[in-house]
Amino acid sequence: MTYPALKTADRSDIGLEMFALIRELYPICRSITGNGVRETLGIINKHIPLEIHNVPSGTQVFDWTVPREWNITDAYVKNSRGQRVIDFQNSNLHVLNYSVPVKKRMSLAELRPHLFTLPEHPDWIPYRTSYYNENWGFCLTHNQLALLRNDEYEVCIDSSLEPGFLTYGECLVPGATPDEMLISCHVCHPSLANDNLSGVALALFLAQHLIQTQNRYGYRFLFIPGTIGSITWLARNETKTDRIKHGLVLASVGAGDKFTYKKSRRGNTEIDRAALNVLQYSGKRYQIDEFSPYGYDERQFCSPGFNLPVGCLMRTPHGSFPQYHTSADNLDLVQPALLAESFTVALDIFDLLENNTLYINQNPKCEPQLGKRWLYRQLGGVDGSVDELALLWVLNLSDGAHSLLDIAERAGCPFAIIKRAADLLINCQLLSRA
Amino acid sequence: MTYPALKTADRSDIGLEMFALIRELYPICRSITGNGVRETLGIINKHIPLEIHNVPSGTQVFDWTVPREWNITDAYVKNSRGQRVIDFQNSNLHVLNYSVPVKKRMSLAELRPHLFTLPEHPDWIPYRTSYYNENWGFCLTHNQLALLRNDEYEVCIDSSLEPGFLTYGECLVPGATPDEMLISCHVCHPSLANDNLSGVALALFLAQHLIQTQNRYGYRFLFIPGTIGSITWLARNETKTDRIKHGLVLASVGAGDKFTYKKSRRGNTEIDRAALNVLQYSGKRYQIDEFSPYGYDERQFCSPGFNLPVGCLMRTPHGSFPQYHTSADNLDLVQPALLAESFTVALDIFDLLENNTLYINQNPKCEPQLGKRWLYRQLGGVDGSVDELALLWVLNLSDGAHSLLDIAERAGCPFAIIKRAADLLINCQLLSRA
Amino acid sequence: MTYPALKTADRSDIGLEMFALIRELYPICRSITGNGVRETLGIINKHIPLEIHNVPSGTQVFDWTVPREWNITDAYVKNSRGQRVIDFQNSNLHVLNYSVPVKKRMSLAELRPHLFTLPEHPDWIPYRTSYYNENWGFCLTHNQLALLRNDEYEVCIDSSLEPGFLTYGECLVPGATPDEMLISCHVCHPSLANDNLSGVALALFLAQHLIQTQNRYGYRFLFIPGTIGSITWLARNETKTDRIKHGLVLASVGAGDKFTYKKSRRGNTEIDRAALNVLQYSGKRYQIDEFSPYGYDERQFCSPGFNLPVGCLMRTPHGSFPQYHTSADNLDLVQPALLAESFTVALDIFDLLENNTLYINQNPKCEPQLGKRWLYRQLGGVDGSVDELALLWVLNLSDGAHSLLDIAERAGCPFAIIKRAADLLINCQLLSRA
Repeated sequence: MTYPALKTADRSDIGLEMFALIRELYPICRSITGNGVRETLGIINKHIPLEIHNVPSGTQVFDWTVPREWNITDAYVKNSRGQRVIDFQNSNLHVLNYSVPVKKRMSLAELRPHLFTLPEHPDWIPYRTSYYNENWGFCLTHNQLALLRNDEYEVCIDSSLEPGFLTYGECLVPGATPDEMLISCHVCHPSLANDNLSGVALALFLAQHLIQTQNRYGYRFLFIPGTIGSITWLARNETKTDRIKHGLVLASVGAGDKFTYKKSRRGNTEIDRAALNVLQYSGKRYQIDEFSPYGYDERQFCSPGFNLPVGCLMRTPHGSFPQYHTSADNLDLVQPALLAESFTVALDIFDLLENNTLYINQNPKCEPQLGKRWLYRQLGGVDGSVDELALLWVLNLSDGAHSLLDIAERAGCPFAIIKRAADLLINCQLLSRA
Repeated sequence: MTYPALKTADRSDIGLEMFALIRELYPICRSITGNGVRETLGIINKHIPLEIHNVPSGTQVFDWTVPREWNITDAYVKNSRGQRVIDFQNSNLHVLNYSVPVKKRMSLAELRPHLFTLPEHPDWIPYRTSYYNENWGFCLTHNQLALLRNDEYEVCIDSSLEPGFLTYGECLVPGATPDEMLISCHVCHPSLANDNLSGVALALFLAQHLIQTQNRYGYRFLFIPGTIGSITWLARNETKTDRIKHGLVLASVGAGDKFTYKKSRRGNTEIDRAALNVLQYSGKRYQIDEFSPYGYDERQFCSPGFNLPVGCLMRTPHGSFPQYHTSADNLDLVQPALLAESFTVALDIFDLLENNTLYINQNPKCEPQLGKRWLYRQLGGVDGSVDELALLWVLNLSDGAHSLLDIAERAGCPFAIIKRAADLLINCQLLSRA
Repeated sequence: MTYPALKTADRSDIGLEMFALIRELYPICRSITGNGVRETLGIINKHIPLEIHNVPSGTQVFDWTVPREWNITDAYVKNSRGQRVIDFQNSNLHVLNYSVPVKKRMSLAELRPHLFTLPEHPDWIPYRTSYYNENWGFCLTHNQLALLRNDEYEVCIDSSLEPGFLTYGECLVPGATPDEMLISCHVCHPSLANDNLSGVALALFLAQHLIQTQNRYGYRFLFIPGTIGSITWLARNETKTDRIKHGLVLASVGAGDKFTYKKSRRGNTEIDRAALNVLQYSGKRYQIDEFSPYGYDERQFCSPGFNLPVGCLMRTPHGSFPQYHTSADNLDLVQPALLAESFTVALDIFDLLENNTLYINQNPKCEPQLGKRWLYRQLGGVDGSVDELALLWVLNLSDGAHSLLDIAERAGCPFAIIKRAADLLINCQLLSRA
């Protein structure tokens, strides 16, 4: 028996809203610290209530130190005729992110070690960073590099790297219980659309949606710079991590023809199984990746000292799409319809976790007579439907040892069908909460 | 190394005997209650001693109530010229089983909602029931329906639905221990041969065979109406269920090119593993199905309040052959040779369970010298046979933690070969019972 | 990500040394007792210090008795013209090993039951033994047999079967701990090169190598006759078996295009997993066989009363190469380069076990900052290398529950890469011994 894909809510409008937000955030030059992040959080704060934290440079966070704050106004390389041959105003990717200030004339030979290109994609500007080693540089297309002649160049990076703050945003949507779901996305990338303005947009609209609903779990959304942001948050919130029952890192959810779910370090937690059940019956293509300690901020949440049940929901995984960390990860890459799909899948995962409960069959000896409760076909001899079978599975396995997700897994069917069956049985007093 | 299929006893005669019984029982109009069941049990009782139980209508059995007893004498639809266009005398499938009495003249339009056909098989009469909703109706071929004209019809169902009894038969073949094997088959279907007169015949001849042998287990045979029969039996025998160490529901064992074994709810009980080992080396095609709460009376035996180790032995599974629940499930469908194969497989499963014991290697440190006991090839350099390898497996794994079935599974060979090796070793005092 | 095969040390010289030893040992007529074994042990003793044990005939060892000692000077069959038509001087395989003395004239008809050939390989002499049943015989090529005419033959086997000793050699290379690795090879086969002079040569050169290194484990090498030798050793060393943490039987390691590792009875011990990891990333073809109680001396080490974690490293498994137990298992069959590969693989397995330790991440909360310790790429945006990923895996899983082998298995990479990463982290105080 094959189960039909569940009809998911039509969310094409939310895809357009998400895309509009991405377009608005796209031009801002973000980094792991600085005004770009603050401006980004300000825009998010217009949609959802955000607690904004500023952590001073020099603060020790486990093995790391919050770095100096980086800001940048302008940057260029001018040839001897005064033409800007590389210009930060055209794309903030042109500057090696966290470049120290420089203002100097130099030959091409002297400049060359500071230039980064992608020979295999000669039209694309690479995205490079140097957060923890003082350096400066320019990223440019390989075609641009080919045009550079021997000349004396004026090199200018009008940046500052000074004591300041690491800034991040946090939004807790309270739930009926103290248990929490952690949702994290990185806000440190400059003009890159899929990685990770798509994740930022998804987190924001999920928060906006959950604010309007009654939830069992509290949903804690983190808008943080990658790596140092999650480390900082964990260092400041060690005592809160016990509340985190499930978590998702959201990244690169706006492009690519399939979903990717990367499992938590523990590998078989409820979030891992929930994501699998939702994707399996989503009607969409998907892949499930085992945990590895390389990727996004799940690296920190799943470090052995925390070992939180945090997975990562992506479409295209980290590093696996050609446009990754280049100027081609732009507004043309992400698509409203794909963003909307990601929104639906994430909500379906939350919905599953909200409803994954243990029930007890109140009539465990033999089947109850479903017919007299109008739950069963009235004419013997006709095969039972999917829903009839779901009723029987819920009754058979609701013995105190199987949650609804356990039952869905054993029945090989979407959680929602099992949930619907459980609701019908609860109405008939055939099932009650464990 | 591939193991030869074990030579099973030649039972072509038993196939003919089983078929003769099916032919005798086929014309009787059975239902979940009534004279048809009693007549059927009477015939069975001529072959094996049967305890016949009559449970009054209205008796509460868990969530169910024993229904009123249904009996039927005649039924027909006559056209205005007095011709029987549908006639119960031609096939008892023509009547919706458990139809309430009706005697009325009506137009085709009025009659039509009470007519059931199989458009995809226009020559077959469907089998339909309405045990728990008062209704009446006729089942007919789609071709018959096509011939019905607008006319005034005389509709007659000469049935009764009155307080009476639910009747079932039980036969316990005692064993050397109080442990029991439960064998159940449903006797409620009217003129349907594979489902389930084949199961009835198999149960009867197994009982007849076991009466003549010395057995470790008691074998409790139930000849019961489907669903309500097993529920009634369980309700009246709750305290006996602890004795049931293994169980098999027998159904649809007379047709189809392969065997199907459906596992018990627990999924890895001894009966499940025994059935797999027997089928795996039977030389016959087979499939193993996981448990699902839909099917035959294993649904009740495996309900969570009982969770008995009861599987289901079939050839063609429930609902999966085209003739299922139609007039085409007739004497042409079942074949004596297939019935005989089913008999052999069932006996082999019993044989395995009877002999599945834990032995202890009496010489556990290094191999014993098999050569001096004439258990081993006498000339070094020639590869050991299947049986030599079996001797070594039994010695190697008889450490108190592995039953003979465990050993057969790890050795990847038929249980009977392991059993033969164990017997040889017992004769040499190299093995003793745990 | 695919890992490159580790570069193994160039050992082509050791292959030649091993081959030279095999050539020296090849002509000697060995059996399970007698001067051939003693001569062989004497040659081994020139390379490594060997404790030589002589166990008197008649000694009871578990279920077995040490047999009388067998020695042989000459054997032949002469035709009536005095020509040696079968001559032990040409090949010691010509005599059924353990033949009792015989000196007699007889017809071909009388002789025929004592002649053994291989019709399917008419040019090869089979190798046959009769250790425990008094018998005599000759093995010859099928072509030789075809030339034998009706004649009176003089049959002479100048052997002795008298009370004496079973002789074996033992060499313990001490380690830093009382824990031991057991290495066993059989020295009972006469002129057969792959089975098992290759195993003897491998054991000898491994011992020679380990004598020169500092080891955590003691390495106990046994040069023993097959079956009766391991049984004798186990009977005399029962109390020492607790020290054996891992073991390998070495056999048939000089020919064949792939490695075969046969697992221990327990099936998932450290030696089993170590052999798998080494072979998996060796760049060589290999197969892993499940344990079975048939094969070499692992049969005794893995008998249920001992159940030692002893696997068997082979190239071509027991009985699975056509030349097995024939005169074609000669010096042409074994190849120095294959012997050298076997040496490297065995050493890599030992190396893995020596280094398989439990470490604890000293900075378990979030990742440590590898960049500031120069352990990480300095420029963000470029994918991490294999070694970077290994650093992250070691940190992530060094939680006190995962050994380095556990980590290598989960990371899906060679143990040596994980070990190298662990060493780097130890140097930075990021890791310490559990």
